[in-house]
Amino acid sequence: MQFSNKILNTPSSFIRNILKVTDSPNVISFAGGLPNPISFPIDALQEAINNSIAHEGAKLFQYSTTQGYLPLREMIAAKYRKNFGLDIDASDVFITTGSQQALEILGKVFLNKGDGVVMEAPGYLGAIQAFTLAEPEFYPVTLEEDGLNVAQLEETLKNNPNIKFIYTVPNFQNPTGITYSREKRDAIYEVVKNYDVALIEDDPYGELRFSGEALPYIGAGRLQNSVLLGSFSKTVTPGFRLGYIVTKNKEILSHVETAKQATDLHTNIFAQMTIAEYLTHNAYEEHVNKIIELYNTQATAMLNAIEKHFPKEVHYTKPQGGMFIWATLPEGISALELFEESMAADVAFVPGDPFYTHPNNVNTLRLNYTNATEEIIEEGIQRLGNIMKQFIEKKQKATVEA
Amino acid sequence: MQFSNKILNTPSSFIRNILKVTDSPNVISFAGGLPNPISFPIDALQEAINNSIAHEGAKLFQYSTTQGYLPLREMIAAKYRKNFGLDIDASDVFITTGSQQALEILGKVFLNKGDGVVMEAPGYLGAIQAFTLAEPEFYPVTLEEDGLNVAQLEETLKNNPNIKFIYTVPNFQNPTGITYSREKRDAIYEVVKNYDVALIEDDPYGELRFSGEALPYIGAGRLQNSVLLGSFSKTVTPGFRLGYIVTKNKEILSHVETAKQATDLHTNIFAQMTIAEYLTHNAYEEHVNKIIELYNTQATAMLNAIEKHFPKEVHYTKPQGGMFIWATLPEGISALELFEESMAADVAFVPGDPFYTHPNNVNTLRLNYTNATEEIIEEGIQRLGNIMKQFIEKKQKATVEA
Repeated sequence: MQFSNKILNTPSSFIRNILKVTDSPNVISFAGGLPNPISFPIDALQEAINNSIAHEGAKLFQYSTTQGYLPLREMIAAKYRKNFGLDIDASDVFITTGSQQALEILGKVFLNKGDGVVMEAPGYLGAIQAFTLAEPEFYPVTLEEDGLNVAQLEETLKNNPNIKFIYTVPNFQNPTGITYSREKRDAIYEVVKNYDVALIEDDPYGELRFSGEALPYIGAGRLQNSVLLGSFSKTVTPGFRLGYIVTKNKEILSHVETAKQATDLHTNIFAQMTIAEYLTHNAYEEHVNKIIELYNTQATAMLNAIEKHFPKEVHYTKPQGGMFIWATLPEGISALELFEESMAADVAFVPGDPFYTHPNNVNTLRLNYTNATEEIIEEGIQRLGNIMKQFIEKKQKATVEA
Repeated sequence: MQFSNKILNTPSSFIRNILKVTDSPNVISFAGGLPNPISFPIDALQEAINNSIAHEGAKLFQYSTTQGYLPLREMIAAKYRKNFGLDIDASDVFITTGSQQALEILGKVFLNKGDGVVMEAPGYLGAIQAFTLAEPEFYPVTLEEDGLNVAQLEETLKNNPNIKFIYTVPNFQNPTGITYSREKRDAIYEVVKNYDVALIEDDPYGELRFSGEALPYIGAGRLQNSVLLGSFSKTVTPGFRLGYIVTKNKEILSHVETAKQATDLHTNIFAQMTIAEYLTHNAYEEHVNKIIELYNTQATAMLNAIEKHFPKEVHYTKPQGGMFIWATLPEGISALELFEESMAADVAFVPGDPFYTHPNNVNTLRLNYTNATEEIIEEGIQRLGNIMKQFIEKKQKATVEA
């Protein structure tokens, strides 16, 4: 059998592959990207399920509409009106099978083979995978501590009229944990508004802010081709696979609807009705605050441990929310090689390579803090810090000798 | 904004669009394709949910594996071993977000733009949509009362080396309700085995047989590139969006896994665990037998009503299972035009056009019988029969006069 070029060129998930190794009970793993399971509101969901079945009966189990359950879309719209003053109603919201599906559908809707996509470098691995299926040309733009490099973004847009959209994660980005500053958001808006491209703002972590102030979106509410993505995976449950697209652009939504029909008809309606019922009768914000408190404790523990145990020449981000810290080793030190050493000592992280569209044995790595206790974090980071010290010393000695 | 050619060329679902008209409470609709909601085992599913949450807790709500929940895959494999003597184990089974997703993923995995797909004519609309996203060349092969026209299939395969796969629904096909005969199955196998193509057998209705004997698959168990699709949508619940791919070809499965990761990471694990729990503790076959009994009654009512009320020159299929009857009007009589007349009299069906890759104002139409009582079926078919008689008479008169 011959297979398609698009599938032969799509990377399988490096993370899902290494999780097979890092999942061993002996390993202290900072490699995952899972929400902490103690954050799932299981009892409240059980109650929401019981109530939904009692009130809606067979409707939870039947085929349903492609755009998604109207009351759920209304609740999502209301959240953006309240929290961001955005002029959004239910007709601007489209429910997807997790926001991964939103990415894949947007790739299909916008991209012919060879069309351009601007990606943060480093950027979200799942987005790289999803867009690769549409065989685009990727244009990486450097992600700085406060967001995309604006001059580079402008240059890229100016020189490449094949670009169809820009993909960003403006809050507590995966993999870096960085948040775009207000100034950068405005500067990016000022550039993007001059081009006929869509701006995708993927925001699965935005509600999980434990310090600093919430910021307005880059494009949502002011760019005609703004597309905002959200998810219930990090705040309620990822197992239900519920994400959504928000856009005022009805032409985009109409194509999204056709793509969704062809892709999986509609999103699990049981899950949609259950979450709508959950949101109606539970204090969602209180629940999210508990997750924030938990992750803040864990992030603080990891940052303190890094400060104590990492070699001083290793730089790292200080997230204001979300799930990740990004570390940068000295120039020329391979994170992939460090990973080998580290796994030998039963500590896992994700080497930076899969987060780049054009990887080249990079010196960066991702650390997740949401799935370990403070004690385990201290122990794992200490171990990792020692391995780093030995490894960097060995490498630098080898360089001097060469 | 410019959109992709693949989305601009993908038909939005004619059926989903006409359902907006046909859903009015005044209309007797044979247009849908929904399982009868009284067939959903709601109490047993509620119990399965409660037990799953009690035993598995957070696992139902967390991210999960791309291939699907192992115990569910084992149960599916066991069913094919038991019912068909196929040498299938859990590693040959891959869970998808409904079998619509299986179609879309297989399109992605196999097809470069311009690659060939053999489709039944008429064929399943959702498959036409799903494959269209990969921009193939469609090669329709006539579907006869006992399956594909074999000579035409062979000719098509011989003349078109770009063909990657053949798509069939061998049991109670959608839209026609026809079932491939044993002889046709063997004859098709004898042709297909000589070509380097995959044979996709999509079998969502196979368990819903109310007459005749179950037949072995065309390719499953004997073709190297056999791909079998199944679903829980017609036997337990469509709202959960649970389908699956069965193939012994590990190369196909490995590409399916990459595509699935990129498409939606994994299928809703809550739904998978619940269905596995349901299958463990409930008499699934008894439940399916109840659906069969119900649909048999409804099919019989519709066939009897058609016999009584349709003009004699209208031909129709007599399904041995599944959900549909296919009617053929006299040559030159447009089903689309009949649909207008019929809707004016508040009876709905699906004109045949969307079921062809190259539609041309056809004289065929689909009738669904699973969502109406015997009385409503009698009333609706009588009404439709009268409209047909008047319409055919009017058309034939106009032809004679012209």
